[in-house]
Amino acid sequence: MAEDTLGLMKDCQLSVRKLNPRQYIADISELKNVEVWFQRASDVVRKLKTGDVDMGIVGYDMLREYGEDSEDLVIVHDALGFGECHLAIGIPTYGIFENINSLNELAAMPLWTEDRPLRVVTGYTYLGKKFLEKHGFKHVQLSTADGALEAAPAMGTADAILDLVSSGTTLRENNLKEISGGAVLSSQGVFVANKKALLERKEVLDVAHEMLERFEAHLTALGQFTVVANMRGASAEEVAERILNNTSYPGLQGPTVSPVYTNEGGTANVDYYAITICVPKPQLYHAVQQLRKAGGSGVLVSPLTYIFDEETPRYRQLLENLKA
Amino acid sequence: MAEDTLGLMKDCQLSVRKLNPRQYIADISELKNVEVWFQRASDVVRKLKTGDVDMGIVGYDMLREYGEDSEDLVIVHDALGFGECHLAIGIPTYGIFENINSLNELAAMPLWTEDRPLRVVTGYTYLGKKFLEKHGFKHVQLSTADGALEAAPAMGTADAILDLVSSGTTLRENNLKEISGGAVLSSQGVFVANKKALLERKEVLDVAHEMLERFEAHLTALGQFTVVANMRGASAEEVAERILNNTSYPGLQGPTVSPVYTNEGGTANVDYYAITICVPKPQLYHAVQQLRKAGGSGVLVSPLTYIFDEETPRYRQLLENLKA
Amino acid sequence: MAEDTLGLMKDCQLSVRKLNPRQYIADISELKNVEVWFQRASDVVRKLKTGDVDMGIVGYDMLREYGEDSEDLVIVHDALGFGECHLAIGIPTYGIFENINSLNELAAMPLWTEDRPLRVVTGYTYLGKKFLEKHGFKHVQLSTADGALEAAPAMGTADAILDLVSSGTTLRENNLKEISGGAVLSSQGVFVANKKALLERKEVLDVAHEMLERFEAHLTALGQFTVVANMRGASAEEVAERILNNTSYPGLQGPTVSPVYTNEGGTANVDYYAITICVPKPQLYHAVQQLRKAGGSGVLVSPLTYIFDEETPRYRQLLENLKA
Amino acid sequence: MAEDTLGLMKDCQLSVRKLNPRQYIADISELKNVEVWFQRASDVVRKLKTGDVDMGIVGYDMLREYGEDSEDLVIVHDALGFGECHLAIGIPTYGIFENINSLNELAAMPLWTEDRPLRVVTGYTYLGKKFLEKHGFKHVQLSTADGALEAAPAMGTADAILDLVSSGTTLRENNLKEISGGAVLSSQGVFVANKKALLERKEVLDVAHEMLERFEAHLTALGQFTVVANMRGASAEEVAERILNNTSYPGLQGPTVSPVYTNEGGTANVDYYAITICVPKPQLYHAVQQLRKAGGSGVLVSPLTYIFDEETPRYRQLLENLKA
Amino acid sequence: MAEDTLGLMKDCQLSVRKLNPRQYIADISELKNVEVWFQRASDVVRKLKTGDVDMGIVGYDMLREYGEDSEDLVIVHDALGFGECHLAIGIPTYGIFENINSLNELAAMPLWTEDRPLRVVTGYTYLGKKFLEKHGFKHVQLSTADGALEAAPAMGTADAILDLVSSGTTLRENNLKEISGGAVLSSQGVFVANKKALLERKEVLDVAHEMLERFEAHLTALGQFTVVANMRGASAEEVAERILNNTSYPGLQGPTVSPVYTNEGGTANVDYYAITICVPKPQLYHAVQQLRKAGGSGVLVSPLTYIFDEETPRYRQLLENLKA
Amino acid sequence: MAEDTLGLMKDCQLSVRKLNPRQYIADISELKNVEVWFQRASDVVRKLKTGDVDMGIVGYDMLREYGEDSEDLVIVHDALGFGECHLAIGIPTYGIFENINSLNELAAMPLWTEDRPLRVVTGYTYLGKKFLEKHGFKHVQLSTADGALEAAPAMGTADAILDLVSSGTTLRENNLKEISGGAVLSSQGVFVANKKALLERKEVLDVAHEMLERFEAHLTALGQFTVVANMRGASAEEVAERILNNTSYPGLQGPTVSPVYTNEGGTANVDYYAITICVPKPQLYHAVQQLRKAGGSGVLVSPLTYIFDEETPRYRQLLENLKA
Repeated sequence: MAEDTLGLMKDCQLSVRKLNPRQYIADISELKNVEVWFQRASDVVRKLKTGDVDMGIVGYDMLREYGEDSEDLVIVHDALGFGECHLAIGIPTYGIFENINSLNELAAMPLWTEDRPLRVVTGYTYLGKKFLEKHGFKHVQLSTADGALEAAPAMGTADAILDLVSSGTTLRENNLKEISGGAVLSSQGVFVANKKALLERKEVLDVAHEMLERFEAHLTALGQFTVVANMRGASAEEVAERILNNTSYPGLQGPTVSPVYTNEGGTANVDYYAITICVPKPQLYHAVQQLRKAGGSGVLVSPLTYIFDEETPRYRQLLENLKA
Repeated sequence: MAEDTLGLMKDCQLSVRKLNPRQYIADISELKNVEVWFQRASDVVRKLKTGDVDMGIVGYDMLREYGEDSEDLVIVHDALGFGECHLAIGIPTYGIFENINSLNELAAMPLWTEDRPLRVVTGYTYLGKKFLEKHGFKHVQLSTADGALEAAPAMGTADAILDLVSSGTTLRENNLKEISGGAVLSSQGVFVANKKALLERKEVLDVAHEMLERFEAHLTALGQFTVVANMRGASAEEVAERILNNTSYPGLQGPTVSPVYTNEGGTANVDYYAITICVPKPQLYHAVQQLRKAGGSGVLVSPLTYIFDEETPRYRQLLENLKA
Repeated sequence: MAEDTLGLMKDCQLSVRKLNPRQYIADISELKNVEVWFQRASDVVRKLKTGDVDMGIVGYDMLREYGEDSEDLVIVHDALGFGECHLAIGIPTYGIFENINSLNELAAMPLWTEDRPLRVVTGYTYLGKKFLEKHGFKHVQLSTADGALEAAPAMGTADAILDLVSSGTTLRENNLKEISGGAVLSSQGVFVANKKALLERKEVLDVAHEMLERFEAHLTALGQFTVVANMRGASAEEVAERILNNTSYPGLQGPTVSPVYTNEGGTANVDYYAITICVPKPQLYHAVQQLRKAGGSGVLVSPLTYIFDEETPRYRQLLENLKA
Repeated sequence: MAEDTLGLMKDCQLSVRKLNPRQYIADISELKNVEVWFQRASDVVRKLKTGDVDMGIVGYDMLREYGEDSEDLVIVHDALGFGECHLAIGIPTYGIFENINSLNELAAMPLWTEDRPLRVVTGYTYLGKKFLEKHGFKHVQLSTADGALEAAPAMGTADAILDLVSSGTTLRENNLKEISGGAVLSSQGVFVANKKALLERKEVLDVAHEMLERFEAHLTALGQFTVVANMRGASAEEVAERILNNTSYPGLQGPTVSPVYTNEGGTANVDYYAITICVPKPQLYHAVQQLRKAGGSGVLVSPLTYIFDEETPRYRQLLENLKA
Repeated sequence: MAEDTLGLMKDCQLSVRKLNPRQYIADISELKNVEVWFQRASDVVRKLKTGDVDMGIVGYDMLREYGEDSEDLVIVHDALGFGECHLAIGIPTYGIFENINSLNELAAMPLWTEDRPLRVVTGYTYLGKKFLEKHGFKHVQLSTADGALEAAPAMGTADAILDLVSSGTTLRENNLKEISGGAVLSSQGVFVANKKALLERKEVLDVAHEMLERFEAHLTALGQFTVVANMRGASAEEVAERILNNTSYPGLQGPTVSPVYTNEGGTANVDYYAITICVPKPQLYHAVQQLRKAGGSGVLVSPLTYIFDEETPRYRQLLENLKA
Repeated sequence: MAEDTLGLMKDCQLSVRKLNPRQYIADISELKNVEVWFQRASDVVRKLKTGDVDMGIVGYDMLREYGEDSEDLVIVHDALGFGECHLAIGIPTYGIFENINSLNELAAMPLWTEDRPLRVVTGYTYLGKKFLEKHGFKHVQLSTADGALEAAPAMGTADAILDLVSSGTTLRENNLKEISGGAVLSSQGVFVANKKALLERKEVLDVAHEMLERFEAHLTALGQFTVVANMRGASAEEVAERILNNTSYPGLQGPTVSPVYTNEGGTANVDYYAITICVPKPQLYHAVQQLRKAGGSGVLVSPLTYIFDEETPRYRQLLENLKA
């Protein structure tokens, strides 16, 4: 997570410089009066709650588990695009669980009693308790362990686990399975702040705003290409109309059109126009095909670092959340 | 080779995701219904021949050795730009070979008889046999070994080796040398397909076409820069003519020309024009010198991700090969 | 330093290819007749002085220490942007030095006599001697050591050290401190040449010129973004004036302005103009804010590889230095 | 700790074989019906308390912290000779703590009140609370963090830390210091068991007994050498008396004495005797000096793998503890 | 295997010194006129057959596969104690194989026909063919692959695999299983020689003999401890009888008994005897218990490097094999 | 060298404990008042000369180069058994040196003049100058370089090199060769002391003495095995005579002989005797063969840690050197 976060900040031209290779504090040369602390995710959330830190970047799962639904925390950006995983129940594929395939079936097993509850081992006792109670589990015992949860059912020290799942391979290798309804939440990196700090200190809100803008602009740019195509045509208008009417990719406001000068016996002549548009990466090949059909040739594709749209809805949302 | 291939696909916005870090299967999120298998090069070629896989990326040397000139294989792209090397004969620099410097001289050595043939150790027995027979070697014995071919002549278990050469250092360190006429083939990464799969399954041909287009467009873009220069001038035409008549870099169809507005007492005036062209990387410095001579200042150079030209000749060639 | 230098050359499209992974010679495919030698910094300077090599890239500290103010050396580029550090005196924080905080105070300590001089351990005996003599130290003994200078004061084998400092952590961990006036020089990577080679061999000067241009153009580009903003407006002039009069970022000569065509009932209409400017990276966010205020929307930000300005003052300076 | 434990067991000829490189269960080929679980220290103690495991090897600090003085745990061997460290209070060397050098002084600081307690960050909240209460701290707030405790005082989120100290370097680098009376406990690896398992299942006690014997015998042998010296003498008795009366190293019960036959004109004669004793390693050189003075020559020194003394007092102690 | 072999030779005081870190030839300082070649296992066997090398150490599986039952190969030592594994058939746990649990059942599946044979992928085509034919498989097609055999059934390119199995984890992770009767052979490192070389060159037989003796003596010593116990007794005979009659560990020919002299008022007295025996490692603890019961105290246990027994039966066997 | 030295000290039961992983000072728990400094070899010699350290372990080559034949240095142990290499001249195998094969021939080349001396690059300018002058070189220029000396002749910046050679591979790979008479010295690790410290401070001499004894005793033990053979015989004398008269391995003073008791109908009988001798490792197999011929069976071989002989001649030599 630290590496992903640093990568994102570097991509957003925020230079995090560790002051000492063996300590945990850094600064950001582009943002004055900001100190960066490297902390474990659980400590980040703890310190956000107490106000020891003003802003933090953590996984959503950790925010929820250690944040314990605190009113002091407010999410500034909820999808930073890294650290994707989900938190889910895993039960054995064998024995009494062989035919259990949903959370409801698990809850309905007559086996669980006060003396012999369903034993779930997890690092997420806060979320786990809430989730299982909400889904009607009456006799549950959550315990914690610091390592290798997935081995507990085979060792006989737990019936089920509640843990992060990414590809499912670890579950399979331990003969565990996910069940229908057993997913507690989906998680990825989020940008959180202490509510009071945002409300009471203007400079904190300003930094949060700038970082939010940079993150948004970079994440948007990551999904787009600048595409320039030369098109033969009678006039800029005619070429523009061809793009606007015959392709699905008009660009942000519309295509930018500039004349291309070709050599006609020593004098420059305009038969071609260069049109510039933005295209979402997944549609690039489709766009190229449409541009070719519309008479485009020499399609140049370039990367983008940022796309700043007018005003990010996430900032308006944040201001509203602060009022609440 | 796997790393180079993955790098190329990533650069072409094809996201290969391993489903399990310890297995050998992946998918590509941008291409539905495509499964990627990670296999050793020899296995890739074997499976392409049997039709167990539809398309593959391997070194040309492996394609020829394990493909054994099979009619079931067709090359889609023959120069992916990585894994360059060549397959060549190496003989000792000392002893009876001290004055042998060409393949013809080697073949003409009276030493080789039925009882005492030229002993060549190689991992390329198919290609080696064909090559040596074609060049008039009568008494040859090819043997195979799984490691350290280059040590065999010094150990006395072979007279010559036939192996891949990149920088020649390994040959030199083992007191071996290449000889004139001893190069069997040059190799780099190639994109191959099973002919029947392309002919009989439209979706395979479509995927091959799209991947070919992406590879081509990316490899073309790797060799070019977008160059923008501001040039003072009386009009767009005049500036364009200067570029067209006085430089060797007119761009794809010609320079794109756009007005630059300078401040003249609060009102905007056009004295400069921004011209945009593409320049091959090796000629960049030359182009900058020409642009300066032609009055250009403030030359901006940017990278490109893709250049899609009109229709790649390689695809037309592929369609013809499929008919054959 | 080797890694940084190779990184810079690669970024400047100069492909350094080692001819043999275990030797120290390489070529550059873009520059004919150039041979690259990998040498320790001290050897680079020694060989520049003797003329064994024509040009070199080393830290400024090494140039000064081993160059010994030789007239045979001339600096081509003095700030390559990597290897920043400074050379400074370090003295203990404890004992007799506890209250010594400046170079003058250190020099004035009555302790130093001919029999008991200030003992300074350093790898920079040439620079150290000159520096201390210049600052009035009478009784000084410089000694050399090949490792771990910073441990010498605690071991009692020296009173002070003279060494490179980057973050100061190593000093602190050994209970040493810098003192006011104790900094000998600041250093970063520099591009140096043998004066005679530049004067007498035109092809050496040409290569130095081209490398200087590429380094300059790349280092300039590293600090700038290309910014394109769509702005609604009555005409190109009107939009250009808005940029020129209301923002601090007019671009190199001024904004390039191109029409954007929007769809108005099937026909293309120009209500927007795309303006293109260059913006220094540290001011990007400020520029986006100004552009928005001026009516900009859809601000696209792209990276640059090179910015070639008209003629680099460093080259004129070099020519003058050669005359001297 | 896992590595040290495996090393000890290997040295004791107990072959721990992981059944699967990616799981956490192993067996011991020399001890039937024993399953080895690899768990984090905290989990080992948790499972020892619940009886999920019968025996475990952990650091004494973890045993005390997570064992919470449970009556279900009994120590079988309290000094396995690895993992030495101690748990201690660390406070800043600067600011208000500059002149605080003992636990009593820290407790007596008038600063601490109910509203502003001494804030201690630690991973040892159980032990820390007990320790501070016992030493008269009234206003204390213990908080937990998952990483980098030692940075907390400088960050202002705690006043003091309570953590493991080995060499003190980490403390010093963070400008923290230990104080007189601030050491909570000393720790090394210990061999613990679930009391009920030892009492109720004979086979568990037997395995614990055998492992205890092997550990003891190996740890004893690590500190001793077998020493054989040839001594000239009139008879075995005379030589033995010389050893017994003139050296401090008589061996376990006394020296073993065997005749050495020398060649005297073709017939074998006894003028020398080989005496064999055990010597503690730290006294080896002293012993050699005494043996030489007593007429010894040719002193051979060999390593030992085990020394089994009669009956280990630790086993008697264990049996008594089980009765309690 | 190379590492294990070098480890064995080092333990046997045979110092293999590579002449050049980047080549493949070494010598052994203790054995004159011996050259060591480092080769892949398949190449070792190939060269043993052709007589290019005289002796080799390889896995038994490789010997059988590449040796192809050649009469030119003779095994000198068949159990060097490293590289244990076995070669076995693996079939899927699912689909049509779900209920197939033995080789006979697999052979009897009506599915296999000439057109649709059982497809087995393996690196052991020689052994595999012989094994399957011998066990009544009529319609089998063996194919080869250079990597990741275990993925072939899931990919649909083979029905079964024939490969080395160590812990079975790789099989399980690929949803494959071993079947009753499906084990082709067990393998470990073996010491092989070219028969003709042993018969015709005395010096080769001598080296083989010495290496065989050293290997045997070392492997025997690895399993034994020297045990010395002090026992109180009336006389050496009495103590010896106690050992011989009351314990199961008399040593090789019987216990060695030496007097121990204890101090009795300044004169040396013999009340104890030191008895020395060899004990197999797995019985050590049992032996200590018996010795204690028989009155032993202070039991010292030491390692052994070699045990040379009278004449190794393996050498007699080798001589017989050479006659055959 | 540091690693080898620490290995030797550990083998000699001298526990070097670094006080701080990032500093350079350690102590030895077995030797009070000794501080260990980790320094580069050149610094060790410099500090031995100035008396900053009392004793040191360095390569003999470094001692001679940086010691500059100082009278303040005295060698305590001259052959510590690690770091073997030799310092020698290397010249090209090609060009004008093709037929030069001895130092005399090199000196006699008419090429070398005052203006064009033989240029030798080396890190050993002190030793190199002395050596070349002594061997009649008149026109020589020694230069220094900090890396990759062996590349200098091919680069044209030197004619010859003077450097350490171990296997000769680096020379060969750079097309250099050693010449007859060109070896300056052979080197291995040596134990050196400051003469004045040994003379004036008894405690330094004592520590040097003890370390010398331990090194000697350990290095002797490394070359020997303890061998125990059971031999059938009529009496101890008869068995001892057999050993003394029929084998070449009588042990240090002679064989130690002890009775072995065999079981004869429940009573213990002595038919065998265990003889114990020391055997040099290289003769082990020969000794086993002789013992077998002499009736030995069950030959047990064990390692030794130390052999302390009576009084080491190296110590007497040291005392004499101190008087000189």
